Amino acid sequence: MTKRIRLRIAYDGTNYHGWQQQPDCVTVEGSLIKAASRLLAIPYEEVIFQGASRTDSGVHALGQTAHIDHDTNRGLWDFVRGLNALTEDDICVLHADEVGFDFNARHSSRGKTYRYNIWNHRFQHPLKLTRSWNVRKPLDLDAMREAAALLVGEHDFAAFRASDCQAQTTLREITAVKIFTTDELGADITIQVEGTAFLKYMVRIISGTLVEIGKGRLAPDIITQMFEQKDRALGGTTAPPHGLTLVSVHYPDHPWADGNEPVIGGPWMA
Amino acid sequence: MTKRIRLRIAYDGTNYHGWQQQPDCVTVEGSLIKAASRLLAIPYEEVIFQGASRTDSGVHALGQTAHIDHDTNRGLWDFVRGLNALTEDDICVLHADEVGFDFNARHSSRGKTYRYNIWNHRFQHPLKLTRSWNVRKPLDLDAMREAAALLVGEHDFAAFRASDCQAQTTLREITAVKIFTTDELGADITIQVEGTAFLKYMVRIISGTLVEIGKGRLAPDIITQMFEQKDRALGGTTAPPHGLTLVSVHYPDHPWADGNEPVIGGPWMA
Repeated sequence: MTKRIRLRIAYDGTNYHGWQQQPDCVTVEGSLIKAASRLLAIPYEEVIFQGASRTDSGVHALGQTAHIDHDTNRGLWDFVRGLNALTEDDICVLHADEVGFDFNARHSSRGKTYRYNIWNHRFQHPLKLTRSWNVRKPLDLDAMREAAALLVGEHDFAAFRASDCQAQTTLREITAVKIFTTDELGADITIQVEGTAFLKYMVRIISGTLVEIGKGRLAPDIITQMFEQKDRALGGTTAPPHGLTLVSVHYPDHPWADGNEPVIGGPWMA
Repeated sequence: MTKRIRLRIAYDGTNYHGWQQQPDCVTVEGSLIKAASRLLAIPYEEVIFQGASRTDSGVHALGQTAHIDHDTNRGLWDFVRGLNALTEDDICVLHADEVGFDFNARHSSRGKTYRYNIWNHRFQHPLKLTRSWNVRKPLDLDAMREAAALLVGEHDFAAFRASDCQAQTTLREITAVKIFTTDELGADITIQVEGTAFLKYMVRIISGTLVEIGKGRLAPDIITQMFEQKDRALGGTTAPPHGLTLVSVHYPDHPWADGNEPVIGGPWMA
């Protein structure tokens, strides 16, 4: 009997050419489909698999979500264990549940949460080399928060996308931006961005622009000017991919929607 | 003119045979002394260098502390930049300040804070492979906290040390043990231990014993029995080194004593 399964996937993006499968490139999605193809004993091309979000090369995930159809007598957790055994340790399916065939990981998504990590210190941090952008000038968090507040709401984000972005419309809604420090040094800064959908490079351009504002090189109201003039060149640099993590994908029915996954439970079975 | 400098050092312990210098082994201390020897243009053996704590092979640090004497016209931050340039990226001096010659990184220490990280999930976490101990059975944090409360105070920790530990007395004082979860999955558990001084493997044996209590295999009052019977075999396993991080070393005069280092300031100079 065929079942549709929703997978919550974490990965360290360092060694991958991004999420999306590509010929002749090692990608996270490609690795998972390859593993599923072996477990299901069907050709790679016949695996029905859809991810929620195409993360860039080097971007990490705590809560990437995908759906997969499997037609097997194998139990859900045996299947997940098999996927984890057949992928490298830097990819892991952390959780899984059965969903209906009307569920589509991409189209059913109602929003996503990203975190952009900055190590705001003169010296590179040995425990954060592949996880945080090392910004060496001091950042004014108040100015960054003032700018962040301007991002919230529905806006035309034409100035916040890659030049080769294929999206047909550039209207997007940001529902929250939080900027906080998380360690005792006060140098570990997180920009958390929640929104209904995102353009290519959008979070990285937001982060790079907020950093320029934090350095005092741009004023907070540059955000408003970018919305009005739709000019990418007004903003800051595109922040490097290794600071970015896809934290969660939101679904209406989804226990992870608020970021509080009740992970203790399911995974302990069997 | 000779000056004594206090260094706050972070490192990823994965690639090192621990902190302490040893012939024919790559260690964190050895790497720093080697770098200092080149910068100061004096033989390795003549570098005056003392670390606060001998972390085990594979253990990480956010706030290892050491003192070094340097006799050079080079400014403090040029010297630190030189140390960072001459060591691998997985070692970094994060902060430095000048101290008096009565300061000794080891003997002036009044306490240390360690964190032991656990990823409490059926599957290994790709972003925590070298940072957290993957414990696959669910943990009862209330039972662990009950046991943790028994650890606080001055006790004979003879049952909480390595068999080859050389310490002459086994009386030690634990000032606080906190157990908390830090991520939205509820599976990322930290055991934070603060004390005036520690025996070899002490935090790892405490952590391994708390985990057995969390699994329900030992009762919380095993801690009291271990104090009374001084029998290492009553406790849990020695938790693996890669979950452990030395967070900070406390000094009476020290801005980092309370774990709130005012790192923004000094490091931005020059």
